[in-house]
Amino acid sequence: MPRTAAGDEPRRSEKWTARRDTIVDTSAAVFAQRGYHATGIVELCEANGLGKGAFYHYIGSKEELLAAIHDRVMDEVLAGADRVAEAGGTPSAQLAMLGDELLDVIGRYPDHVWVFLHEFPALTEERADTFRVRRRSYERRVEAVVRAGIEAGEFRAVDPRLTALAWLGMHNYTYLWLKADGPLTARDVAKPFADIFLQGITSD
Amino acid sequence: MPRTAAGDEPRRSEKWTARRDTIVDTSAAVFAQRGYHATGIVELCEANGLGKGAFYHYIGSKEELLAAIHDRVMDEVLAGADRVAEAGGTPSAQLAMLGDELLDVIGRYPDHVWVFLHEFPALTEERADTFRVRRRSYERRVEAVVRAGIEAGEFRAVDPRLTALAWLGMHNYTYLWLKADGPLTARDVAKPFADIFLQGITSD
Repeated sequence: MPRTAAGDEPRRSEKWTARRDTIVDTSAAVFAQRGYHATGIVELCEANGLGKGAFYHYIGSKEELLAAIHDRVMDEVLAGADRVAEAGGTPSAQLAMLGDELLDVIGRYPDHVWVFLHEFPALTEERADTFRVRRRSYERRVEAVVRAGIEAGEFRAVDPRLTALAWLGMHNYTYLWLKADGPLTARDVAKPFADIFLQGITSD
Repeated sequence: MPRTAAGDEPRRSEKWTARRDTIVDTSAAVFAQRGYHATGIVELCEANGLGKGAFYHYIGSKEELLAAIHDRVMDEVLAGADRVAEAGGTPSAQLAMLGDELLDVIGRYPDHVWVFLHEFPALTEERADTFRVRRRSYERRVEAVVRAGIEAGEFRAVDPRLTALAWLGMHNYTYLWLKADGPLTARDVAKPFADIFLQGITSD
């Protein structure tokens, strides 16, 4: 569930939610450009064409906005992992599909991912905890696929945690150069990456 | 050569250089903590126990400081690549050594690397160009080793650029979790990473 500024109030209208999503997206671009700490509420209001009252109505606080940007990314990443789990298949196939899904999110949300990867230390208390739990749960899913591959004899006896971190680094780091309008699609990259990684951990 | 605020004036004293290096290191920690844009000269002076006059004497400008942090990282990374080239050996051995060297820098300079990877868009004009050229020259060296491995028949016919980007991502991304005082040394990580990557691109 996406975190909302109005988490305690159920039933916001669709229109309200759509407007809020647009504000989150626009603000992600502003944070990506100028940095979270250096961006003030006034600039966010200007970028979104909102008065302060309206801004707080939709968002609550600057940190709430940052959390919403993180949640936008994590919602997509975890939904991709769910699709992979539902699709089933061998651990090799699962890892390849996870790569497809992850690069697809990175290609579609360059600003959000930039903010996600750079500004997470600015989340505090409960928001920091929620983010850590969600991020860790995704990492655990990658690790679990590696473990399953080792148990099935598809992968050699690699360290599952380090291997997951290697895989995550290889894929996440594409945020610096993979763009939706760039020369390479997410899939163009996902395939050779999967080839390298799967051959790299396959048992003979 | 490290860029210095006094690039046009040769022969600064060793004491001046050492003091400047300390300022660069201390400021890297401040930028890593608070972000480049959000950190003012006043805070940098406070963190370094300097008046504004002394700060400008050693550094010149905030952007000059950012460039010096980037150069500190690039100097080390390129020196590592030089050592690898001098050591010689097969492309597989070269790639493994490049990984050792890169993770060693990341482990030793966590703040600098954080700033390097997050704040490079704040460099402008000539400083941005210099940084791009140096970073690209390192990437080309990784690519060149991949190409050499393909030509020697050690590696299969991977795309050298994408393969270099995969390798760089896998290694660079360790900046989020590899710490000099952490449970894993750079070498603990470099070895299994090299095993995965080299097996991943090896020809049968």
